[in-house]
Amino acid sequence: MSTTPVTDLSRLCIHTITTKPWDIETAARNYSASGVKGITVWRDALHGRDIRKTGDMLRQNDLKVVSLCRGGFFPARDRRKREIAIDDNRRAIEEAFELGAKLIVLVCGADPSQSLEDSRKQIQEGIVSVLPEAISAGIRLAIEPLHPMYADTRSAINTIHQANDMSEAIDSPWVGVAVDVYHLWWDPNLEKEIIRCGKNNALLAFHICDWKSPTLDFLNDRGLMGDGCIPIRKIRSWVEAAGFIGFIEVEIFSTEYWKMSQNKFLYKIIDAYKKHA
Amino acid sequence: MSTTPVTDLSRLCIHTITTKPWDIETAARNYSASGVKGITVWRDALHGRDIRKTGDMLRQNDLKVVSLCRGGFFPARDRRKREIAIDDNRRAIEEAFELGAKLIVLVCGADPSQSLEDSRKQIQEGIVSVLPEAISAGIRLAIEPLHPMYADTRSAINTIHQANDMSEAIDSPWVGVAVDVYHLWWDPNLEKEIIRCGKNNALLAFHICDWKSPTLDFLNDRGLMGDGCIPIRKIRSWVEAAGFIGFIEVEIFSTEYWKMSQNKFLYKIIDAYKKHA
Repeated sequence: MSTTPVTDLSRLCIHTITTKPWDIETAARNYSASGVKGITVWRDALHGRDIRKTGDMLRQNDLKVVSLCRGGFFPARDRRKREIAIDDNRRAIEEAFELGAKLIVLVCGADPSQSLEDSRKQIQEGIVSVLPEAISAGIRLAIEPLHPMYADTRSAINTIHQANDMSEAIDSPWVGVAVDVYHLWWDPNLEKEIIRCGKNNALLAFHICDWKSPTLDFLNDRGLMGDGCIPIRKIRSWVEAAGFIGFIEVEIFSTEYWKMSQNKFLYKIIDAYKKHA
Repeated sequence: MSTTPVTDLSRLCIHTITTKPWDIETAARNYSASGVKGITVWRDALHGRDIRKTGDMLRQNDLKVVSLCRGGFFPARDRRKREIAIDDNRRAIEEAFELGAKLIVLVCGADPSQSLEDSRKQIQEGIVSVLPEAISAGIRLAIEPLHPMYADTRSAINTIHQANDMSEAIDSPWVGVAVDVYHLWWDPNLEKEIIRCGKNNALLAFHICDWKSPTLDFLNDRGLMGDGCIPIRKIRSWVEAAGFIGFIEVEIFSTEYWKMSQNKFLYKIIDAYKKHA
């Protein structure tokens, strides 16, 4: 079942938020010096910068810009807030274009003051609204199903089944799904739905980290690969059986790891990637 | 879609853990004085007591003993630990018999050092092992699917779909499912699977509370009905459409509510039950 270990770093991508204490210039320099080949940029890392020049800086560091994180947060009971969210997603598309990212990951959102069904409807409407701009800019949109513990405010899309359904309903080659092991590892339908996603040519991104036992914080206590109980290599084997050959992205939010020397943490990431990814 | 409000307390049951600062005698006296008609007993509340006499005490307080919480925790990579768990479930059956409870709720368990598939297999084996004793004692066993955020250590059964599958596989009128809104509210298949459960005559218990935004603790930050975003009344309408006419059980673990006067909290529970259940 499990696939072979990765033998080099050619598919390793790191999210800027993983090494949050570093600014993007420091992150780029250090990732590059360590042989990392991809970077996913969180929008906060671009704050106050010329985005086009920042994209050039990343490429000069021999880093592929894998995606921009994140768009989404479409649902709101208040119509004006939904319009603001759609405008913000249009800005994200412009930023991705300037940066040279070909993909935006969507954390779809949810509004706890309305039903999940209403939030899902608004997510789909939001994606469809910004799709023309995404296509013009040559940028794909990846629906990222989030763990059910985030169903109140972060995403009403909580399984890959739902993400596949929505991607199929929108039915555009520019819209697909991001698979993150942290959100999906518990799902008994995961293998089947990853294969379905692959058949749709809709598997656009693969994010890894680990689930610690115990996990102490809802957001910022993710583990490094090997710290927890997620069968990362098994899930990678499914993702690859589905035809995915893109970057393997390390996305870790961790107060604990952010406290340590980020150079040491980067070393740990690379070591854990080789052992457990 | 939503059903009518409850108009009296004839179906209201409270879990002893909901008012954890009270011993079971105090809880029984106060529930009863407030018109509550059912009690679900957590095993820790029986510590050091004559269980048979405690059951009599509850009935003298005009309380129906709805269930005993909890059995389960079957999976372990180590065979000896699985045997200990099975023994403990046999003890739970004896305790339920002595107490006069007709149902045991199973928090099925999971061992993060093995696959979820292995844990699920061991859960089914565990239930089947203790089933003869449960039948002899006249006690049903309810598989409670737990929220996916507990998949590492508390339960490898994380959706009602899985609980229905296992209940059907075991295929005994003595094994069914407990529906807890906290664990299941996010699931897009919830209505369909509740109806399936009802068709199997397997819907054995219905637990309520609410999901707060934000939720600050993985275990002990549950909300009172109305504090959060769970469509409790809508889910009750599905449960009742599935034929369930049993007790509506308030099960809240909350450091915050445990800190307040439990008399005031009981008043709040009854008020929230009338408004939101």
